[in-house]
Amino acid sequence: MALVVQKFGGSSVADPDRIKAVAEHIVATRRRGDEVVVVVSAMGKTTDDLVRLAHDISPAPAAREMDMLLTSGERISMALLCMAIIEQGEPAQSFTGSQAGIVTDTTHTKAKILDIRADRLRESLAAGNVTVVAGFQGVSTDSDVTTLGRGGSDTTAVALAAALEADACEIYTDVTGVFTADPRVVPEARRLGRVSFDEMLEMAATGGRVLALRSVEFARNHGVRVHVRSSFTWDPGTWVVSDEELEVEGMEQAIISGVTHDTSEAKVTIEQVPDRPGVAARLFRALADEAINVDMIVQNVSSQGHTDISFTVPHADLVHTLKVMEEHADDIEAAGVTHDADVGRVSIVGAGMKSHPGVAATMFETLASEGINIEMISTSTIRVSCVVAEADVNRAVVALHRAFELESA
Amino acid sequence: MALVVQKFGGSSVADPDRIKAVAEHIVATRRRGDEVVVVVSAMGKTTDDLVRLAHDISPAPAAREMDMLLTSGERISMALLCMAIIEQGEPAQSFTGSQAGIVTDTTHTKAKILDIRADRLRESLAAGNVTVVAGFQGVSTDSDVTTLGRGGSDTTAVALAAALEADACEIYTDVTGVFTADPRVVPEARRLGRVSFDEMLEMAATGGRVLALRSVEFARNHGVRVHVRSSFTWDPGTWVVSDEELEVEGMEQAIISGVTHDTSEAKVTIEQVPDRPGVAARLFRALADEAINVDMIVQNVSSQGHTDISFTVPHADLVHTLKVMEEHADDIEAAGVTHDADVGRVSIVGAGMKSHPGVAATMFETLASEGINIEMISTSTIRVSCVVAEADVNRAVVALHRAFELESA
Repeated sequence: MALVVQKFGGSSVADPDRIKAVAEHIVATRRRGDEVVVVVSAMGKTTDDLVRLAHDISPAPAAREMDMLLTSGERISMALLCMAIIEQGEPAQSFTGSQAGIVTDTTHTKAKILDIRADRLRESLAAGNVTVVAGFQGVSTDSDVTTLGRGGSDTTAVALAAALEADACEIYTDVTGVFTADPRVVPEARRLGRVSFDEMLEMAATGGRVLALRSVEFARNHGVRVHVRSSFTWDPGTWVVSDEELEVEGMEQAIISGVTHDTSEAKVTIEQVPDRPGVAARLFRALADEAINVDMIVQNVSSQGHTDISFTVPHADLVHTLKVMEEHADDIEAAGVTHDADVGRVSIVGAGMKSHPGVAATMFETLASEGINIEMISTSTIRVSCVVAEADVNRAVVALHRAFELESA
Repeated sequence: MALVVQKFGGSSVADPDRIKAVAEHIVATRRRGDEVVVVVSAMGKTTDDLVRLAHDISPAPAAREMDMLLTSGERISMALLCMAIIEQGEPAQSFTGSQAGIVTDTTHTKAKILDIRADRLRESLAAGNVTVVAGFQGVSTDSDVTTLGRGGSDTTAVALAAALEADACEIYTDVTGVFTADPRVVPEARRLGRVSFDEMLEMAATGGRVLALRSVEFARNHGVRVHVRSSFTWDPGTWVVSDEELEVEGMEQAIISGVTHDTSEAKVTIEQVPDRPGVAARLFRALADEAINVDMIVQNVSSQGHTDISFTVPHADLVHTLKVMEEHADDIEAAGVTHDADVGRVSIVGAGMKSHPGVAATMFETLASEGINIEMISTSTIRVSCVVAEADVNRAVVALHRAFELESA
């Protein structure tokens, strides 16, 4: 008898018919003899609707109350899902984040899980129930209701799988798995059967929207095997597993597993910064103090005692960022601040590039042959990212997908 | 500095504009220097919508999950109400039934309050907050989420007022108070300034829909002064207080305070029952075992060793009741079972009738002069009820209201 955590996103439980279909799948899993812990998001667009309602009341709703409000969404979906499971003949019980023992810090609207005290869930499982847990929510060390931020239900599922030592964590969504590129951009993109935690992390960080970044970090840190799959086709999807498991299976790691892209950020450049110790620190501390989430940072080698520093920030933070930077540009004797909102980032991700030199060169050559200018470059051991003009992004993705022959397994 | 509990029903918080208006009233109360505990119901028809959703999933939804589902409604309204109060400049915190320490028994969908552990509320008040509590819900001794049944938010408010020793419990609703009769039936019906707990209990039990019966019992048993008033006009409404307080104020109790009516029940008659000890007990035990809520019971004097027993039950239970009675009619050698669904009950209620003989006679004469036939009669010390044909109910109410001169104070 295995213990399986099954997580269903909002589109999977969007209406009563979908809820009944999901219940059938859960009941079938249970009847095969497995213990099942279900994590569920709010139905469809419920969370968006609640956010809109809050903004009808207040332009900046109180964070504690926002969490109280939003957690009503999973309460509805999990209660209905339990009713559907019970209607199909299997016992089921729902649990709020608090009842499930998901203890978080006190940072409302983006709390971090500190501990999972799963005694009640274990008792409910031992009594033969399917236990259904509200995703995205917990209870703080101050006994207040908290939420984990968008994508938090994935984190709930992975954290419960770790705490309960589940055999697998199945993330059901509206796509059939992790692809070599976004199929809307590259129709011949291929579903990956297996991907390593590190690759999945790089993909999630550079535009792959299948799994929330934090849930992948949690899975890697706790060794939780994750299976991303569709609740519409129920076909096997993509397994996210450790490097060790990939090696045990004797699979050679692909040089490149996928091409990702992201057009949600803008580029900011601080020109002619004096090349002295502490200058960059002052700039980025100023941004951190304003809670601006800086992503990619590139500094060129210094010429004649001055250098340009470029970085990317979310579009929503651009105006705020420029204001902060202009306040500091004089201060650090920079020549000025420029920005470009119409950029995008294209990345190639693959664990195999560690042992295959020349991958970056192939990427740059491919972009050059398409006449695409590269504005920024950054790399990790298993990723190369280029910032290009937003208008060139899709063409770059298609060209890279073809250059690395990702359409063929 | 007084402590006031203010309860707002679903129509009072039906949309964002209503929520803002209610918040203004709460903030004004707070700024006059009073401590305020707010109890709030779900917005408008939310609860009905959730019940419908549950029935889309299952014809008989699991009670534990029904409670989990329905309690999402107050979570939404109380979070939004707090946001609105905070937006207007006063600190506020919302609390679920569980967080507010409302401990109930384990009877899902109609739990009874066992205890109120209001430490968190007291702390929140001491910190200067308006504390907003979800009505209608609690946490069971098994740590499950429970609801108190329809009208439960009134009970939450009165119970909190008792536990916190509040100076008053204000019940805001969509009517301006308790009337001498339903103003839709008697346009000249008058709002009562004061009414005693006992009168309010009899009115609630016989068709007055302003306060839930259980909340009035609770208020009487704990001496909680209740003020029923409108959240649309904000005018003073009706105070529900103890007999002692009415006496202290030197108010002479009216002979009749109001006329109520109720057309939600049907009449069942068991004919020619042998007049032996234990026969009635067997009949009503059989109904109790089926959880059928019998209301008015009348047995005439015996003639020739046989008697007729009549009683009323809610229309929804009529078919079930007839089935149970027919099973037992032979058993107890009764001649048969008849029923009449087209009946209604008209009642006059007044604490003064205890010391004024002839009130019942006036009622019967009034109905006779209107040509209305009386099918059943029952009385308490401060109430006389008559069952009449449903078609005669409104005419009976108008005639009684006039006969007892209730239109003039």
